[in-house]
Amino acid sequence: MQWTKVLGLGLGAAALLGLGIILGHFAIPKKANSPAPQDLDLEILETVMEQLDAHRIRENLRELSREPHLASSPRDEDLVQLLLQRWKDPESGLDSAEASTYEVLLSFPSQEQPNVVDIVGPTGGIIHSCHRTEENVTGEQGGPDVVQPYAAYAPSGTPQGLLVYANRGAEEDFKELQTQGIKLEGTIALTRYGGVGRGAKAVNAAKHGIAGVLVYTDPADINDGLSSPDETFPNSWYLPPSGVERGSYYEYFGDPLTPYLPAVPSSFRVDLANVSGFPPIPTQPIGFQDARDLLCQVNVSVYNRLELRNSSNVLGIIRGAVEPDRYVLYGNHRDSWVHGAVDPSSGTAILLELSRVLGTLLKKGTWRPRRSIVFASWGAEEFGLIGSTEFTEEFFNKLQERTVAYINVDISVFANATLRVQGTPPVQSVVFSATKEIRSPGPGDLSIYDNWIRYFNRSSPVYGLVPSLGSLGAGSDYAPFIHFLGISSMDIAYTYDRSKTSARIYPTYHTAFDTFDYVDKFLDPGFSSHQAVARTAGSVILRLSDSFFLPLKVSDYSETLRSFLQAAQQDLGALLEQHSISLGPLVTAVEKFEAEAAALGQRISTLQKGSPDPLQVRMLNDQLMLLERTFLNPRAFPEERYYSHVLWAPRTGSVVTFPGLSNACSRARDTASGSEAWAEVQRQLSIVVTALEGAAATLRPVADL
Amino acid sequence: MQWTKVLGLGLGAAALLGLGIILGHFAIPKKANSPAPQDLDLEILETVMEQLDAHRIRENLRELSREPHLASSPRDEDLVQLLLQRWKDPESGLDSAEASTYEVLLSFPSQEQPNVVDIVGPTGGIIHSCHRTEENVTGEQGGPDVVQPYAAYAPSGTPQGLLVYANRGAEEDFKELQTQGIKLEGTIALTRYGGVGRGAKAVNAAKHGIAGVLVYTDPADINDGLSSPDETFPNSWYLPPSGVERGSYYEYFGDPLTPYLPAVPSSFRVDLANVSGFPPIPTQPIGFQDARDLLCQVNVSVYNRLELRNSSNVLGIIRGAVEPDRYVLYGNHRDSWVHGAVDPSSGTAILLELSRVLGTLLKKGTWRPRRSIVFASWGAEEFGLIGSTEFTEEFFNKLQERTVAYINVDISVFANATLRVQGTPPVQSVVFSATKEIRSPGPGDLSIYDNWIRYFNRSSPVYGLVPSLGSLGAGSDYAPFIHFLGISSMDIAYTYDRSKTSARIYPTYHTAFDTFDYVDKFLDPGFSSHQAVARTAGSVILRLSDSFFLPLKVSDYSETLRSFLQAAQQDLGALLEQHSISLGPLVTAVEKFEAEAAALGQRISTLQKGSPDPLQVRMLNDQLMLLERTFLNPRAFPEERYYSHVLWAPRTGSVVTFPGLSNACSRARDTASGSEAWAEVQRQLSIVVTALEGAAATLRPVADL
Repeated sequence: MQWTKVLGLGLGAAALLGLGIILGHFAIPKKANSPAPQDLDLEILETVMEQLDAHRIRENLRELSREPHLASSPRDEDLVQLLLQRWKDPESGLDSAEASTYEVLLSFPSQEQPNVVDIVGPTGGIIHSCHRTEENVTGEQGGPDVVQPYAAYAPSGTPQGLLVYANRGAEEDFKELQTQGIKLEGTIALTRYGGVGRGAKAVNAAKHGIAGVLVYTDPADINDGLSSPDETFPNSWYLPPSGVERGSYYEYFGDPLTPYLPAVPSSFRVDLANVSGFPPIPTQPIGFQDARDLLCQVNVSVYNRLELRNSSNVLGIIRGAVEPDRYVLYGNHRDSWVHGAVDPSSGTAILLELSRVLGTLLKKGTWRPRRSIVFASWGAEEFGLIGSTEFTEEFFNKLQERTVAYINVDISVFANATLRVQGTPPVQSVVFSATKEIRSPGPGDLSIYDNWIRYFNRSSPVYGLVPSLGSLGAGSDYAPFIHFLGISSMDIAYTYDRSKTSARIYPTYHTAFDTFDYVDKFLDPGFSSHQAVARTAGSVILRLSDSFFLPLKVSDYSETLRSFLQAAQQDLGALLEQHSISLGPLVTAVEKFEAEAAALGQRISTLQKGSPDPLQVRMLNDQLMLLERTFLNPRAFPEERYYSHVLWAPRTGSVVTFPGLSNACSRARDTASGSEAWAEVQRQLSIVVTALEGAAATLRPVADL
Repeated sequence: MQWTKVLGLGLGAAALLGLGIILGHFAIPKKANSPAPQDLDLEILETVMEQLDAHRIRENLRELSREPHLASSPRDEDLVQLLLQRWKDPESGLDSAEASTYEVLLSFPSQEQPNVVDIVGPTGGIIHSCHRTEENVTGEQGGPDVVQPYAAYAPSGTPQGLLVYANRGAEEDFKELQTQGIKLEGTIALTRYGGVGRGAKAVNAAKHGIAGVLVYTDPADINDGLSSPDETFPNSWYLPPSGVERGSYYEYFGDPLTPYLPAVPSSFRVDLANVSGFPPIPTQPIGFQDARDLLCQVNVSVYNRLELRNSSNVLGIIRGAVEPDRYVLYGNHRDSWVHGAVDPSSGTAILLELSRVLGTLLKKGTWRPRRSIVFASWGAEEFGLIGSTEFTEEFFNKLQERTVAYINVDISVFANATLRVQGTPPVQSVVFSATKEIRSPGPGDLSIYDNWIRYFNRSSPVYGLVPSLGSLGAGSDYAPFIHFLGISSMDIAYTYDRSKTSARIYPTYHTAFDTFDYVDKFLDPGFSSHQAVARTAGSVILRLSDSFFLPLKVSDYSETLRSFLQAAQQDLGALLEQHSISLGPLVTAVEKFEAEAAALGQRISTLQKGSPDPLQVRMLNDQLMLLERTFLNPRAFPEERYYSHVLWAPRTGSVVTFPGLSNACSRARDTASGSEAWAEVQRQLSIVVTALEGAAATLRPVADL
């Protein structure tokens, strides 16, 4: 999981009304040995919930995390085979499964010349060398397949210079240093993880002439301040002093050589000299033990190499009995930085358990979904969501036309306190429906929903107090699905009690200490949180695949739009008025959307009371499924690679509103009326108005002009 | 119709196998008074064919062309009301109809200061003034609403200079003049229509420092050489000496101020200073009478003005009984330059007759189509397909998701010899099926198909000798549908016997001589060709709206792809090989497409023999309908506004193959291996390979991975 890019934004939430069972008769041919459900079968749902087994998830995780499985490594390939074997199992497999391989540009440290960070004395002698590997605390950190900590895609080079502490490496951090009169040219910047993306630290540093960047994990950010060996793993869940967070420092996602093209061998590759998005200067991550020791002159030697490697996705499918051309797509990446027990194997362990349970029902002839369910194990996510992005590039149209929703479970358990869901508004209701019916792990008899609402909640104008969903950034493989394809997406996990830890993320993230025992002892002993996430994902998938009416509630977008509009009015209204820009058309568009979404909801309710024929329901479902597509505009943000969703593109402006508007206002603020920057504000406003008007138009009765 | 932009390319053609009537039972609720056909009803088809009445078409044309109806003029607004009245008629109207209005930037000559072209003597005195209006030959050329001949969007200005004859104003024409040592700086170029687009003449001229451009219609190009009043209208169909072709000189299409946004009042408008695509220098069209008299020093005074005007589309719908969310879209523009009897009223006269016949069946309760039929009367086409383009911008997603095909009938009759159809391959079969069943006008008992094949034909590897379809350029309102939205489109007309005339287009095109009498006496006395086009369009529309299986034959794309591939191999293969670029992946992709298209055809045949349920057929139909979308890539041609279709984007390279490849090779040809131009060749190759692979993927069984 690419944590640093994750945005957080509270989102609208709504309980889906129980669908009930639609009884009207309609003729769908029954296939031999595969009873086609007319609607969600609550008995089947119950069976699936019961059979999702915490012990099996634990055993999956043990096997998945037994060895390091860096993208494209031999062990990664072994896991491809493991997935294929499971998904082709005659008793618990899927209808079909296959691996598909891309040739992608990855970055690795040199085996012959490890990256080095040395403190150099006044006479040039080495006073201290940073650890080249993490301490072999459990016997798993010393293995031959543990990749040295490094910053993937950082260029090689051997800069030497005075060390300057630059906080998080944000633009304002460097400005502050300048203000203090500190000379930055030719120095080595010591930065800590967090605040801005990994790659951004080097990009910002290079603008000031800095020669190299070190990035360490601060105990205050990750260990609630604890730092001694006694207080850290294997004695607690905290990161040992030698632990180093690896990660990709590539700014975009997808294979860097084939933007917008699948990285098949024949595809055109950008000349390396023209690749953008790599850190401009040598960069190396280190542990806090070494960070503490650093002073004065530092020598950083980075010997990273770019390599074209084969990386595979594994895809498995259960064919839909009635609407095989509608895909419920569920995935997670497979590759890790080291053993990756939490990231990503906690997700893959669940993926395998869910496919086993559903596969078994399938093979027994007990059940077949109404729509197709596609399981995906993505390759090379850690390097920049590469496998999933290439997949979306290769099958752009097919996926865009047919995918009902994308469900991502990457790190399934960060901690045991509560569910955490990120997603777009249409998925809120199905997640609520699912979680109300599943018991929360831990003491008491709360549902996952009732437990969740205690940790993350908001007051919805429509529903009152509900759990709050976060918004989707680009932290995992959902990014190409929501931002590039406009498919309603979600990411599901169990996570912290924030009153108990302020850790930026679970402490051993991307280190050699992220192992099976770490999960088994500290993160989720008993695997009940894993089971809870498996059940949540399973229930969501079944509801999406089997419900006669798609459980995507498009009217839940109205709350988001209204809140974006209010923020624009309150925080930008006066400024815009000064420049004679009216928010009137935006108000009208939001109102139109609200009215059409509500009216569509009414029509669905009415239809549900009757006995609608499958074609009628299909037409309505198409409206629901395709709503998210209407927010895409590939020409809206020409400088943002892949980002086309006018509601969820990256927001750099401070006002929490439509991102194009927020960003454009932020840039125009200090320019005169009539500037190009103000023209861009007007353009962005028109783009979002057109998108909302277009969205409302797709929600109207289909034969209305 | 924007004739100058029309490309011509012979295309594959195939007879659709008669669908027959599918008998399997399925439950679609019958609506009161609107029998829902299960499949195309041949009796209804026959009724429609019979009721399409040549006399009524003639009366429509008389009314439509009674007065000049320049876009946004009062008479244009009157015609909006006429269309609304017809489409809301209780006995022969549609289910609903409405006008929708955009505020768009048009260009007009000044009423106070008419544009002037004078010959100036050595002492500065005026020796001769060109006609400011056309001669009032029939009493219709002298009316107050006849707009002065002008070049829409040409800037105002009063250049004076020596006259230089520059042939067609192509780049090579000016180069030739340079080679001859003729000084071009500060001159006025006299060019003739044809060869390159209108606006291109001024763009090319300005590059050489030319101060102004005159464009005349050469009798050799339009009148088969005839030029005297005796030999021209009203004594024949040829253009009188004073006739001047008006036209839009704007390079792109759509409202110039709102690219990619609908021109609603609230939309952002580009600053006039930043608008691209207008002619850079004053330009004025003249008649051949004046052209003949021009010599020496010429003074051109252009006083054109840009004006924001309201322009309306009129849309009417017959709601589908079974699949109302599938649109068969049929349209033509309404605005003319002057009376516009041929362009566009010959098409609108048919549109009205077709809507009357179908509306009457509807209102009587005899029939309601399976899918929705949408009738459209576009505004401001003559200025650059503005109404249709704004419509596609406003409803992009809705149209892209739901439109089965777009049928355009602009100028319906150029002449009486033969049918002429431009379209993408999937529409070939339905046009063949329709035209085989309709009698050709004129003597004998040929079908339209059998007559057509005598004039335009080609040898198809699959079908043998068939009529050949032309390809769609940007000559009329189909352009935004095919190029911007990726909707299978066609343009239907009756046209010349090329052995009898070499006229570039019908001679009075865009002049004040394009009147009702001109059509009635010379172009189509008896209106039987109009009737033939009405029947063809009607049959195509009914087949698309009522057939259970969509009559779009996607496998007919295979011939096009194969021919593009062969051209690439033959004419570019050696060159590409020299630069180590392999066509292998393209070969594979084409083969894959062919195989998948054939297999899908097989599955359809099999299904047609059984009794498939409506949902199964809907899924197949979605594959057929959406195939054309898979060829869109909005990032393929970033410099070509709106053009996203990787098979039909404008081709400037001479090799008749995939346009991106052809153009990129043409640019790279003289550069070294490793140049950016060669990288662009590889990128374009990958774009088309990815599109074809993606297209093939959408044709596979939907639940195959």
